[in-house]
Amino acid sequence: MFEIDPAFVATSHALGDLALSHARLQDDARYPWIVLIPRRAALRELEDLAREELAILTDEILAAGHAVRALGVQVDKLNVGALGNLTPQLHVHVIGRRIGDPAWPGPVWGHSPAETYGADKLARATAAAKAALGLG
Amino acid sequence: MFEIDPAFVATSHALGDLALSHARLQDDARYPWIVLIPRRAALRELEDLAREELAILTDEILAAGHAVRALGVQVDKLNVGALGNLTPQLHVHVIGRRIGDPAWPGPVWGHSPAETYGADKLARATAAAKAALGLG
Repeated sequence: MFEIDPAFVATSHALGDLALSHARLQDDARYPWIVLIPRRAALRELEDLAREELAILTDEILAAGHAVRALGVQVDKLNVGALGNLTPQLHVHVIGRRIGDPAWPGPVWGHSPAETYGADKLARATAAAKAALGLG
Repeated sequence: MFEIDPAFVATSHALGDLALSHARLQDDARYPWIVLIPRRAALRELEDLAREELAILTDEILAAGHAVRALGVQVDKLNVGALGNLTPQLHVHVIGRRIGDPAWPGPVWGHSPAETYGADKLARATAAAKAALGLG
């Protein structure tokens, strides 16, 4: 049975379910950042998905890239990563990076504590991300 | 015309050309680490590839995962990342991580200077990676 690791719930907000993945907005206002969690039980690595699922995940990664660009923050480069060293449940980060953002040019993971969205900004970012992902 | 950014040449060794990507072994003996560079000109983001190319790249990412496991180092988790903040030419890192490796559990990128392979180890790792990728 598919269940989301509680670590995701603590650090991000649900956007909704795409064809394969549960999509979440990472609660760090410094980076437009979507996390995709394929909704299958017991996944750890990309290779644990079937070929057809990988094709869907690829589409969802591209869609998440468009969505992070729709959050009203400048995006100079996308960063896409499936790491899972801390939370091994398979998930893919799609992050919009801006030249000069706090972690630039290094990776965001592990750089510094999140600066969470306030309620208003979170509502706006969530609505924009949902609209871009067709999760209105 | 496709050309490899010189930054890759300085930090990795050619393994050969897969269907889409040029494959290279990152010259850091601490991590089994393959870099895939799709052989198309002027790519920056995954979305710059056609759907069929993305499907091939996905296959090559899985193959690179098998290959890093074939280098004789324990692999507890794969890390797959397309960042490009420093070198914007589209490339995908496939890295075998071991619990307790120098950067664990953080990302390897930007963590610390590479510890390059010696000639013998490089020859062995290159041969193993080529064999696993069918680049014998």
